[in-house]
Amino acid sequence: MTDNSPFLAARRAYQPRQPRVLADLTRVAVRADAAAAPAPAPALAAHVPRTANLRLLRVSPGAEPRRRELPLRVGVVLSGGPAPGGHNVLWGLLDGLAELSGSDSLVGFLGGPGGILTDTARILTRAELELYRNTGGFDAIGTGRTKLTTEADFAACRRVLETRELDALVVVGGDDSNTNAAVLAEYLAEKGSPVRVVGVPKTIDGDLKNEHVEASFGFDTAAKVYAELIANIARDALSTRKYYHFIRLMGRSASHVTLEAALATRPNLAIISEEVAQRGLTLRALVAEIGDLVKARSRAGKDFGIILVPEGLIEFIPEMKGLINELNTALASHDVDAVPAQLSPAARDTFASLPAEIQEELLLERDPHGNVVVSLIDTEKLLIELVKAHLAAEKKAGRYGGKFGHQHHFLGYEGRCAAPSNFDADYAFALGRTAAALVGAGASGYMAVVSRLAGPRADWQACGAPLTGMMALEERGGKIR
Amino acid sequence: MTDNSPFLAARRAYQPRQPRVLADLTRVAVRADAAAAPAPAPALAAHVPRTANLRLLRVSPGAEPRRRELPLRVGVVLSGGPAPGGHNVLWGLLDGLAELSGSDSLVGFLGGPGGILTDTARILTRAELELYRNTGGFDAIGTGRTKLTTEADFAACRRVLETRELDALVVVGGDDSNTNAAVLAEYLAEKGSPVRVVGVPKTIDGDLKNEHVEASFGFDTAAKVYAELIANIARDALSTRKYYHFIRLMGRSASHVTLEAALATRPNLAIISEEVAQRGLTLRALVAEIGDLVKARSRAGKDFGIILVPEGLIEFIPEMKGLINELNTALASHDVDAVPAQLSPAARDTFASLPAEIQEELLLERDPHGNVVVSLIDTEKLLIELVKAHLAAEKKAGRYGGKFGHQHHFLGYEGRCAAPSNFDADYAFALGRTAAALVGAGASGYMAVVSRLAGPRADWQACGAPLTGMMALEERGGKIR
Repeated sequence: MTDNSPFLAARRAYQPRQPRVLADLTRVAVRADAAAAPAPAPALAAHVPRTANLRLLRVSPGAEPRRRELPLRVGVVLSGGPAPGGHNVLWGLLDGLAELSGSDSLVGFLGGPGGILTDTARILTRAELELYRNTGGFDAIGTGRTKLTTEADFAACRRVLETRELDALVVVGGDDSNTNAAVLAEYLAEKGSPVRVVGVPKTIDGDLKNEHVEASFGFDTAAKVYAELIANIARDALSTRKYYHFIRLMGRSASHVTLEAALATRPNLAIISEEVAQRGLTLRALVAEIGDLVKARSRAGKDFGIILVPEGLIEFIPEMKGLINELNTALASHDVDAVPAQLSPAARDTFASLPAEIQEELLLERDPHGNVVVSLIDTEKLLIELVKAHLAAEKKAGRYGGKFGHQHHFLGYEGRCAAPSNFDADYAFALGRTAAALVGAGASGYMAVVSRLAGPRADWQACGAPLTGMMALEERGGKIR
Repeated sequence: MTDNSPFLAARRAYQPRQPRVLADLTRVAVRADAAAAPAPAPALAAHVPRTANLRLLRVSPGAEPRRRELPLRVGVVLSGGPAPGGHNVLWGLLDGLAELSGSDSLVGFLGGPGGILTDTARILTRAELELYRNTGGFDAIGTGRTKLTTEADFAACRRVLETRELDALVVVGGDDSNTNAAVLAEYLAEKGSPVRVVGVPKTIDGDLKNEHVEASFGFDTAAKVYAELIANIARDALSTRKYYHFIRLMGRSASHVTLEAALATRPNLAIISEEVAQRGLTLRALVAEIGDLVKARSRAGKDFGIILVPEGLIEFIPEMKGLINELNTALASHDVDAVPAQLSPAARDTFASLPAEIQEELLLERDPHGNVVVSLIDTEKLLIELVKAHLAAEKKAGRYGGKFGHQHHFLGYEGRCAAPSNFDADYAFALGRTAAALVGAGASGYMAVVSRLAGPRADWQACGAPLTGMMALEERGGKIR
């Protein structure tokens, strides 16, 4: 991190506003909420006996000042895709630890959880983290997607954490990473290890929202970056009046980013995957709806517009989901050429209705498990091709007289590492300080949570939510090991 | 233009800083610079006898205050792709006319020069233009690419301008539009029409730079928007350390945008079309250079990076330019399938070296003249495919052991309609006021020019450059009619 950018210098000067409850970590009390139901669901208790039945921890002010004798030694790791504010989590964490215990550094494991397994780490000092204040990216220590899966992984992890004499490990990540953190917390407890595990929720497209996690840090920033670009493109559409811009937006399993950007920019259409699934819309029906919009606008002399498309749309369209499942089964045991013949009549119809380019992508691109890579499908281009064909038929039938010019865009990497908005800077910093409070209180198997985010900063609440509560969520997807 | 955005309200509050010379238009003198050589080159004088041999007009302060009796009636038209600052040209123009002559409105021809031919126009009042202050886009009156070509076009144009009793028409556009403006000025002079024509230079990717036009309004803004996004993507690359991002940037006939964005973001490589042409690089050699960079970074443990690609690159690579010329000739008289056999051995080799997807684009996409549509070629994807193949061969030969992950991006429409930077807001406003000064002085066949842009705003100079000077430029391309 060099220090020669006026923008970074200006951004660095911003001091995150903090909730009253986190104003002085030496005076907070961290207490189990007796009124909260223990997590997780009883079915999971057998898997995680030591960390099951934890109750929500509430962070509240008003205790006698208390400062630890010895500095807390804490390791931290970032997991999964970057989100604006990640550096503020690190900064807030160390800031909180310093206040609580005089810590002047963190052990940052490099390149994601894989860095724990290989003990690849570097020391993050306060002086250095000051340079990363309110900056985007996860580049201070990098990130990665390695998961701890085997007994050997967990044992290696324990060895590294104990050899480094860490009091705790803080894991910043999405649902998978937090499930991993939950299992690690259970493992360490089972082995009688003194190392504690605390999670921090992160998932920029908003699919880790639950009763405790109101919003993901970085979501606000990314949605604003995309909204600005969509607004620029919309100005262009209005200036030149000749193109429909189909803009695909980040968000595979949820359409929150699309919805937020739509509220800010008011496009002509924002497709919301969840609505498509709820209405059981077929691809054909969706294309006809877009076609109706284009026709109506054309009658008003407007052969241009903005249509937002969430990245994960395809998998929310029932017939496409069915086709993809059948393709995955057929691809596992047949040559590519023989695959179409293996499909059910319905799936074969769906497949035949797709443009050749998309058919090819479905058959030829495969992930390491041999499955169709849905994320590689350029949904916005698929829709353009289908709408084009639909409108050509409508024109032939005399029901459309316009000109369908089109452009396509995908906004993803442009926003994941932007400098955090004030909201995200505040929120991520508060999450880091909450994690420090939990570590200071000796909690393990908890996720740092900051809530009442819609209210004034001063009134935000901080708590620790049992990580096993996140696992219950995972179990519904049939994913828990 | 609605008035409910806090961003627009804040942006509207900005008052463009203006050069001393334009501080009071009632006191400026507009005089021919006797020292400047007349334009254009003698060869053109026969084509434009009435507007040839014009000399540079200098706008200077210090005259006695002079205000016209009657308000100046002026029409304005925007031509070609939008650029940030266009609305400030309109605002500056009306602001200047109001100061000079009490004008309280402009006639805005809608949707580009086609709006003159069909007399589609609306009145832009001062109150309305105030709402467009410092906003991006050309949406106040739209834009278009219609050209005046026939005698009938020019006659229709004259009729509309004279029926509306306009004193002048201001044309904001690129080299084509200004050539058109030059021809119109000559036509109107020849017919003894009282309507004058003044141009304002606009071309966001910077290909209208010449001795008079130091920079295009909007270039600064667009380059900044792109640089911000490139910086975000670079943070992402550094955070996840797994992808090369190939980012194609606007700029067909010049690489200025790529160069400017590269200076701001310091990518691992910025390909500059002009350098490629100057060095006579083949596609193969360019790919090998990229491959060398990837290999060297891989040896340093860095299998990621940022590579900027100017939109127009393909046409600067000698062998690709040759191939495209041959394809255009062959496509004119042969079926698509027979085309490859018509190519010279060299062109056939080049064609064969391209990925199938690109071959298809070259053969199947055609503009209205039947030519290959070079702009449709996704140059960044072409490079990725070729680099991938190159690295696979290098790996086989034991010269590369890395992993080549890649992502591609195209940044174009995202920046053309952004809100103008302060520089562009100031510059475009000054151009508008300069155009007003030229109109007020009765000039015709001139382009409004503001220069010494690298110096303080107060010292900027304003002048009128003969439009026929732009035509000389055009003639070199063999394009003049």
